[in-house]
Amino acid sequence: MPIYKAPTRDTRFIVNEVIALESYGELSGFENVSRDVTDAVIEEAGRFATEVAAPINLSGDQEGCTRHADGSVTTPKGFKEAYRQFVDGGWGTLSAPEEFGGQGLPHVIGFAMEEFLSAANQSFAMYPGLANGAMSAILVKGSDAQKTLYLPRMISGEWLGTMNLTEPHCGTDLGLIRTRAVPQVDGSYAITGTKIFISAGDHDLSDNIVHLVLAKTPGAPESSKGISLFIVPKVLVNADGSLGERNAVSVGSIEHKMGIHGNATCVMNYDGAKGWMVGEEFKGLAAMFIMMNSARLGVGMQGLGQAEASYQNGVLYALERRQGRALTGPAEPAEKADPLIVHPDVRRMLMDAKTFTEGFRALCLWGALQVDLAHKAATEEARQEADDLIGLLTPVIKGYGTDMGYKVATDMQQVWGGHGYIAENGMDQFVRDARIAMIYEGANGVQAMDLAGRKLALNGGRAIQRFFALVDAECSGAAGGDETVALVAERLAKTNGELKAATMWFVQNAMTAPNNLGAGAYAYMTLTGIVSLGLMWLRMAKVAAAAAGAEDASFYQAKLVCAKHWALRFAPQAGALRREIEAGAETVMALPAEAFATG
Amino acid sequence: MPIYKAPTRDTRFIVNEVIALESYGELSGFENVSRDVTDAVIEEAGRFATEVAAPINLSGDQEGCTRHADGSVTTPKGFKEAYRQFVDGGWGTLSAPEEFGGQGLPHVIGFAMEEFLSAANQSFAMYPGLANGAMSAILVKGSDAQKTLYLPRMISGEWLGTMNLTEPHCGTDLGLIRTRAVPQVDGSYAITGTKIFISAGDHDLSDNIVHLVLAKTPGAPESSKGISLFIVPKVLVNADGSLGERNAVSVGSIEHKMGIHGNATCVMNYDGAKGWMVGEEFKGLAAMFIMMNSARLGVGMQGLGQAEASYQNGVLYALERRQGRALTGPAEPAEKADPLIVHPDVRRMLMDAKTFTEGFRALCLWGALQVDLAHKAATEEARQEADDLIGLLTPVIKGYGTDMGYKVATDMQQVWGGHGYIAENGMDQFVRDARIAMIYEGANGVQAMDLAGRKLALNGGRAIQRFFALVDAECSGAAGGDETVALVAERLAKTNGELKAATMWFVQNAMTAPNNLGAGAYAYMTLTGIVSLGLMWLRMAKVAAAAAGAEDASFYQAKLVCAKHWALRFAPQAGALRREIEAGAETVMALPAEAFATG
Repeated sequence: MPIYKAPTRDTRFIVNEVIALESYGELSGFENVSRDVTDAVIEEAGRFATEVAAPINLSGDQEGCTRHADGSVTTPKGFKEAYRQFVDGGWGTLSAPEEFGGQGLPHVIGFAMEEFLSAANQSFAMYPGLANGAMSAILVKGSDAQKTLYLPRMISGEWLGTMNLTEPHCGTDLGLIRTRAVPQVDGSYAITGTKIFISAGDHDLSDNIVHLVLAKTPGAPESSKGISLFIVPKVLVNADGSLGERNAVSVGSIEHKMGIHGNATCVMNYDGAKGWMVGEEFKGLAAMFIMMNSARLGVGMQGLGQAEASYQNGVLYALERRQGRALTGPAEPAEKADPLIVHPDVRRMLMDAKTFTEGFRALCLWGALQVDLAHKAATEEARQEADDLIGLLTPVIKGYGTDMGYKVATDMQQVWGGHGYIAENGMDQFVRDARIAMIYEGANGVQAMDLAGRKLALNGGRAIQRFFALVDAECSGAAGGDETVALVAERLAKTNGELKAATMWFVQNAMTAPNNLGAGAYAYMTLTGIVSLGLMWLRMAKVAAAAAGAEDASFYQAKLVCAKHWALRFAPQAGALRREIEAGAETVMALPAEAFATG
Repeated sequence: MPIYKAPTRDTRFIVNEVIALESYGELSGFENVSRDVTDAVIEEAGRFATEVAAPINLSGDQEGCTRHADGSVTTPKGFKEAYRQFVDGGWGTLSAPEEFGGQGLPHVIGFAMEEFLSAANQSFAMYPGLANGAMSAILVKGSDAQKTLYLPRMISGEWLGTMNLTEPHCGTDLGLIRTRAVPQVDGSYAITGTKIFISAGDHDLSDNIVHLVLAKTPGAPESSKGISLFIVPKVLVNADGSLGERNAVSVGSIEHKMGIHGNATCVMNYDGAKGWMVGEEFKGLAAMFIMMNSARLGVGMQGLGQAEASYQNGVLYALERRQGRALTGPAEPAEKADPLIVHPDVRRMLMDAKTFTEGFRALCLWGALQVDLAHKAATEEARQEADDLIGLLTPVIKGYGTDMGYKVATDMQQVWGGHGYIAENGMDQFVRDARIAMIYEGANGVQAMDLAGRKLALNGGRAIQRFFALVDAECSGAAGGDETVALVAERLAKTNGELKAATMWFVQNAMTAPNNLGAGAYAYMTLTGIVSLGLMWLRMAKVAAAAAGAEDASFYQAKLVCAKHWALRFAPQAGALRREIEAGAETVMALPAEAFATG
C-alpha cells in the first residue's frame, strides 16, 4: 500500500519563513495567529490526513461508491467514519468565517489542510471540497436568511454541498443549459432537469446535501445571461433548521470513471424539486464564478497533492529497490546491486518532482495569502493588488498545477517500472486521480483562455503588469551575495523577459486576430507557471541562503539545490514556449475541418 | 464505443511516395513487391484491424482475462474467434521468412500491419506480437532442429510464444535472475523459478505456447554474463511435431493492471519444467537482445497505434460536439453553438497529434526498411549503414514514440472534456493502454541510456555521424523551391545543430563524469526524436510540394501544413533540450539520498 506523510515541515517553512504569516498580525482575524498556533494546527491537520484519510485511499479506489436499489448511495468502507472524525475535529471550519461558526483562520492554513487531504485521499477530500465551493456562493450571494439557515451546518460539516452546472449537452458553454426553474406561489422554484458529472452528488456522509443548481427561469434569455442559481437541498429544511421532507432530487446513476472512484460522481435528476434563488435572477453565472474560483484553487491543490503523494512513493521505491550499478562504479559493493536512486535518470525525475512540488506549494500558500489580503489588507491599493494577483494566477494554479501534478504522478509511476503498472501498488491511482484535475472545474484549455483572453486584458493589463513588477523587484533585490540566489535571479529575470515579450506579442498580434491568442494561450499559461515557480524559488533561495548555518542546515541546503534545479531545468523551457506563442495561429487554423478525418 | 479506421491512405503514401518501396526491387524478396501487391495487402490488413480487432477492444478492457480454478486462462469474449481469423488470414506470416512458411514480404508491410493491429486493439495485438519476439530469437540463435520444430507453427500462428525475463526482484538488471536450469541426461534442462509480468503468458488462443525463458545453469557467473536462454513449451512437442504431455509450467495469477486488460499478464511458475537451450550457454543476454530489439520496435508501433486511435476519436468529438463560439465570431450562426474544432486550443491538440502521428508513422516505416536493408542491401557499406541507423533509432522509436503516444492519448482525452474521463467512452483506455508502452521492454529511461550511453559510442560514434550526415543531406537538398520546404529545412538544420552540440557536449563532459551523460540522456532521446520527426517531415514536404496539383491536392496540402507545424511547434523545443543536457548532473546528483525523504 502506498505511503503518505503530510509534509508539515515544508509547510511550516513556507508559512513561517517564506510568507512570514506572523508579520500580518495587523489584519483582521490574523491578530492571534501566532507561530505556535499555526504550527500546531498544521501538525494536527497533517496527522489527520496521514492517519485517517490516507489509509482508506487505495481501498476506496478499489471498492468505489455504490448506488443501491432504493436510489441511495454509499461511500467506500471507512469513509463514513473518517468523515465523522473530520467533523468532530472541526477540519472544515479552519478558515470559514467565525460569524457562522468557523475559526476564521487565514486561508493559508485552510489551503495547507486542503493539500494534505487531497494528497492523502483526493476522493475523500472532494466531499468537503465541493461543499466549500457551494458555501462560498451562499456566503457572497445568499440572503441573510439563506446564510443563517444553511451556512452554520455546512461549515460545521453536518451538511455537505455540491455544484450542479454540467448537463449532458453542455459543460463549458453553460449558456446552453436546459434545466428549468418555475416560480411557485410560496417564493420557491420548481427545478426540473438533468445534471451530470456531479461530484459528491449523493453519499452517506451527511444528513443533508445542499445542491447549488444552475437553471433558467421561464422566458430567460437563451445565452449565459439567462442563468440563475438555486439552492436545492436534498432534504427540505424547516424554518427552525430541522430536517423536513425529502426533496424531488434523485441519483440516476453513478458514473464509471478512470479514477476518483471513492467519490460518487452522479447523474442528478431534478423532478420539480423545490429550490430557492441565490442572488438575482439572470446573475447565476457571476455566482457560479464565485464557486468556480474557489473550486479552481482547490483543484490546483489537488495537482499539488497528487504530486506530493506520488513523489513520496517514488522516493520510497528509489531508496529500496536495487537494480543495476551507479555509472561511477558500485555505490554499495557489498550488495548485489545499488538502489535506484544512484541512477541520474531516476534522480532527474525525483528532482523535477521535488522542485515542482515544493515550489508550487509555496505558490499556492502565497496565493492563499492573497485571497485574505484581497479582503483584509489595510489599503484599497493593497487589496486591489492582491485581488489582481490571485485573479491572474488562479488559472495558472489550476491549469499549470494540474498538468504538472499529472506529469509528476506519471514520472513517479515510471520510477516504479513494471511494478508501477500493477494496481495493488497504487502508483496508477495517483495518475488516474490526477488526470481529472486537468479536466473538471474548467478544462485546462479553458484556464489558458481565462488567463490569456480575459485576465490579461482586464483593467488595461494591470494584473500582469503588477506580476511583472513583483518578479522584477524580487530579481533586483538579489544582487550580490549567494551564488545560487544570483543564478536563480538571473534566470528568473530572463524567463520574465520571455513572458513580457510573449505578452507584447499578444498585444500586437491578437487584438485583430484573436486566433493568435487562442493558439498561444496554453503555452502562455505554462510559461506563466514556470515564471511563478521561479518567483517562489528565488524567495525560498534567499531565505535558505540566509539560514546557512542554521540547526537544520541540510533542509536549507536542499532548498538551494532545488532553486538551482529550477534555473537549470525548468527555466530553459521559457524560450521555447515564447517561440511557440509567436508562431501564432497559422498552422493551427490552416486546415479545413474535414482534413482531420482519417482517409 | 470508440471508432477506429486504419489510416491506409497515409500508409500507402509513405510506402509508395516517401519510402518508394518499389524502387528497392533489386533486394532479395522484394522482386515481386509491386505497388499493386503492397496496396492490396495494406488495405486488407487495415480491414482486418478495423473490422475484426477494433470492435472487441473496449469490451476486452472491460471484461479482462480470467484464470480459472484449474489454472487455465481465457481471453475476453471475441478474442478467440478474432485470433482464428488472424491465423486463417495469414496475418502473422507477412514478413516472416518463406523458408518456414512466411510470405517474405518487406518488414515495411509487417510494420504497417503491426500499427493497425496495435491501434485497433493493443491487448489483442500483443498475443502475436510477443510470439514475434520469441520467433526472432529462435530464428537467429536456434539450432536447425529447433527452427524446424517450432518456427513453422509459430509463423502460421498455430502456436504462440512469450518472453520470460523479469522476476519479482529484477527487471532491468537481469544479472540478478534466480531461475535455475539444471542439465538432464537427455540434453534438456529442468527449469525452476518464478517469472512475472509475462505478457500473453497463458490464454485460450493457441494449442501451444512457446516460452523463451532466461535462466542460469549451475555454477554460472553471478552477473548477466551467466544467463542462458531456453525454449520451454507449454505443451511438450514430440519429434514428429505432434503435441505430447503438458510441461511443468503454470500460471500463478493474472496481474491486476492499469490497462491492457485484454492481455493476460501472468506470474509464471516453472517447476522443473523441461527446456532446451537456445544458442550457447551464458550467451542468453545476446539472444535476449534479439527478441528485445524486435519487441522495442513493436512497442514503438504501439505508441503510434494509440496515438492514431485516440486521435481519430479526438477528431470525431471535435467535429460533433458543439460548445461555445469561434473567437472570430459564430462559425455556424444557425446552430446554438459551434463545433469544438473552431477553438484554436482544441486544434492545437489535434494538429500536434496529427503532426506527431503522421511523422512518426513515416519514421517507423522508414525504420522497417532499414531492418530489411541491414540484411539485404547490395553492399556491405549499405548494410552497415542501415544497421547503424536502425540500431541508433530503435531506442528513440521506443522511447520518444511511446512518450508521445501517451501524450497524444492524454490530449485527445482532454478534447473530450469530462466525457473523456467516463469509462464507457473509451478515451481513458487509450491513455491506460498507452501508459504501459513507456515501461515494458526497457523503461524509457533505459532506452535513453541505451541511446546516449551505448549507441552513441559504438564504433567511434559512427551511427550518429551517419544520422547527422543523413539529416544534413536532406536539408541541403531543399534549397530553393517551395516556401514550406525551405522553412522546414532551415529549422531542421537548426535542430540538427542543437543535437550535434549536445553530442559534442557529452563527448567533452561525460567521458570522465558519466553522470553528466545519465542526467542528460532523456533530453537527448527526446531531442533525437524531434530531429527524426523533422527529417521525415522534410521528406514528406518535398513529396507533397512536388505533388501540388495532383488529383488528391488537399491530402498533399495538409502534409505541407503539418510539416510547417513541426517547424513552428516541435522544433523550438530543441534549444531548451540542449540547454537541459548542458546543465549536466550537478543539481541532479547533489542531494544526499536522505534529503529526498519527506520530513
